[in-house]
Amino acid sequence: MKPWHVLNTALLAACSLIFSTTPAWSQTCDIGLRGTGDLGIVIERASGSLLIVEHSSDRRLCRVEGLGDLSHASATYSRDARYAYIFGRDGGLTKVDILTGKIVKRIIQGGNSIGGAISQDGSLIAVSNYVPGGVKIFNSTDLSLIADIPATIQPGEAHTINTQSKTVGLVDAPGQKFIYSLFDGDATWIADLSKPDQPQLTKLNQIGRQPYDALISGDGRYYIAGLFGEDGLAMLDLWHPEKGVKRILPQYGRGLEKLPVYKMPHLEGWAVAGDLIFLPAMGLHQVLIVNKNTWEETSRIELKGQPVFAMARPDGRQVWVNFAYPDNNWIQVIDVPSMSVVKTLDVGKGALHMEFTPRGEKVWISVRDEDQVKIFDTQTMSLIKTLNVEKPSGIFFSNRAGKIGL
Amino acid sequence: MKPWHVLNTALLAACSLIFSTTPAWSQTCDIGLRGTGDLGIVIERASGSLLIVEHSSDRRLCRVEGLGDLSHASATYSRDARYAYIFGRDGGLTKVDILTGKIVKRIIQGGNSIGGAISQDGSLIAVSNYVPGGVKIFNSTDLSLIADIPATIQPGEAHTINTQSKTVGLVDAPGQKFIYSLFDGDATWIADLSKPDQPQLTKLNQIGRQPYDALISGDGRYYIAGLFGEDGLAMLDLWHPEKGVKRILPQYGRGLEKLPVYKMPHLEGWAVAGDLIFLPAMGLHQVLIVNKNTWEETSRIELKGQPVFAMARPDGRQVWVNFAYPDNNWIQVIDVPSMSVVKTLDVGKGALHMEFTPRGEKVWISVRDEDQVKIFDTQTMSLIKTLNVEKPSGIFFSNRAGKIGL
Repeated sequence: MKPWHVLNTALLAACSLIFSTTPAWSQTCDIGLRGTGDLGIVIERASGSLLIVEHSSDRRLCRVEGLGDLSHASATYSRDARYAYIFGRDGGLTKVDILTGKIVKRIIQGGNSIGGAISQDGSLIAVSNYVPGGVKIFNSTDLSLIADIPATIQPGEAHTINTQSKTVGLVDAPGQKFIYSLFDGDATWIADLSKPDQPQLTKLNQIGRQPYDALISGDGRYYIAGLFGEDGLAMLDLWHPEKGVKRILPQYGRGLEKLPVYKMPHLEGWAVAGDLIFLPAMGLHQVLIVNKNTWEETSRIELKGQPVFAMARPDGRQVWVNFAYPDNNWIQVIDVPSMSVVKTLDVGKGALHMEFTPRGEKVWISVRDEDQVKIFDTQTMSLIKTLNVEKPSGIFFSNRAGKIGL
Repeated sequence: MKPWHVLNTALLAACSLIFSTTPAWSQTCDIGLRGTGDLGIVIERASGSLLIVEHSSDRRLCRVEGLGDLSHASATYSRDARYAYIFGRDGGLTKVDILTGKIVKRIIQGGNSIGGAISQDGSLIAVSNYVPGGVKIFNSTDLSLIADIPATIQPGEAHTINTQSKTVGLVDAPGQKFIYSLFDGDATWIADLSKPDQPQLTKLNQIGRQPYDALISGDGRYYIAGLFGEDGLAMLDLWHPEKGVKRILPQYGRGLEKLPVYKMPHLEGWAVAGDLIFLPAMGLHQVLIVNKNTWEETSRIELKGQPVFAMARPDGRQVWVNFAYPDNNWIQVIDVPSMSVVKTLDVGKGALHMEFTPRGEKVWISVRDEDQVKIFDTQTMSLIKTLNVEKPSGIFFSNRAGKIGL
């Protein structure tokens, strides 16, 4: 077992007093008795802090500091929607109480982590690591280590000389499972944590070269990994793992220059609207539309830039798209019934992340370079409100607590 | 505007002190600071009360009394998941704070109500009424009346002599809309509440004889009404209301004896699993399987009794079915990949209602005649726990707050 460190920041991390011109801004984080169904967090990537927010009246509630390196941070929620677990780039795993603004516990669990997930029953937190490779499983209550699953690859099994693979694309799936991929091992592993201290591993090898990210469909059935080392995508039907991993969309990426890995599309940016998947094209100013019954591309839509995220509104009737630099001030809205772009918005430089309210009437957009979160009415596609936030990136609303794969 | 009455029960309705053999049972309802993501309510239909429950550790927290006639009661949640709105058979609309167990407000808004819904933005509560017919719209904060929409039908427009129709099948839909049907008017109406005090009505007439109940698909797109007066179902694609209402499944009900309306299947009992809909057959010991891309029946599965509810586990991999008397002690579990019954459980007499936890690892089942709620692990299909509840019926977990149509 690798050593891991508990930072004694829990008691020190009461919310900081901060100054703001916004009158509604609370100077302490003791939010008090209230429902947690309309709360959320916004990651402030540069300052290692986050804001607790509320999307009924579109307000910031308070700031929590001391979260370490939050570039590319992600988050998940406890099943009671009170606690957010923040996965930091520095290997930090932090449990934040969004009703008090306190850090309940913070540990450094690895050297370079890139994502995590919570188990179906809410009892376990899994974190995937680059350095060292592998996945660690923690008790969600006190963040004590329950299992350490190295991603050991045998010589000859892969194309590199590593013996511990980077792990990527970690998601939860029904049946107390976590699914993830081995970048250096060309593999997807299924870890069944039904008995938490005795993980049962199913290893699917030779899925394709260098899986770099993955997604799971909203019903927890399809796990799809993007491949850095070759064209196409690797799809696993978790209802039929015995059928193995299939290559789909073999043209995906074909004929293009090799991109650095940080320019590869985020797979969690896939939008599923009914039977259609809207997939950011790789290196092109297009979104690809794929029928999920056949896994074949049916059409493409031309866009203003190279898409990063294509996010479906919860009812699947619109898909909102943001773009890579230098077009990262634009947001385009695709109307699904007509399969056309119906709105192009200039929201300001650095539009990084979008999060819809649970029933989809609003969308919050992080605009990093403007230090703002902009909130739009999705029906009129007009700006409702602007919040001041320091270098905002990921926005995570608490209804994720009840969603498979989030 | 019809008169409506405010009952001064709010201040009197603190939780009752009750006695129980269960040690974890709280004697007061002051639940205190906690997340609301894993809370729920169980209707106690005979005593006009409800239990506040918690599904992380499967506990009863406390009882709230004074809710009137709760036979066939339903409920919806505020967008912060703190308040439950209970729609009683006696026309009562009660707002309950599930963190304090207090009745915030209770009104008698009609003579005989059968259901309600909350608007997409959470600001409005709509209630549909039998007597008098029509729909009333209330402010979700204080339950003040905002709009009263009579369901007036013109002589000759319908097949009865009523001038106010019973309203049924009320659901919310994206765009601040409520959709409902007129039993006596053979119509489906769309009420757009974007301007709450000026509802815009779209009336679709001659949809079929005597719509008696309806459902909306989880994405808020398809509204489907059951017909008491003739065979088949009336389907409206809300993305294309200009195309009108189509008749689907024309064989549904055909060739069978006319059933009394209370024996008609509950339409909210339809299970959608991927592209397949599992639909309780009318008067037969079968579930019908319908492809939602073609709206045609693809197969049937034989069951142990006449199904009432067919509920899909959130991942769509299982469908749990309960049955009408005299088979209402059985629950059957259909495995979707193999399209076969994999488990038959005797849970006790009066198995009325099922509710899955948000990610589907457990299901709670009301067993009325045993005064119990039984909780099953959906993976092993084995009993986890039994709770004592007086004549339980509907179970409503708070994650409904974030779901279209619930």
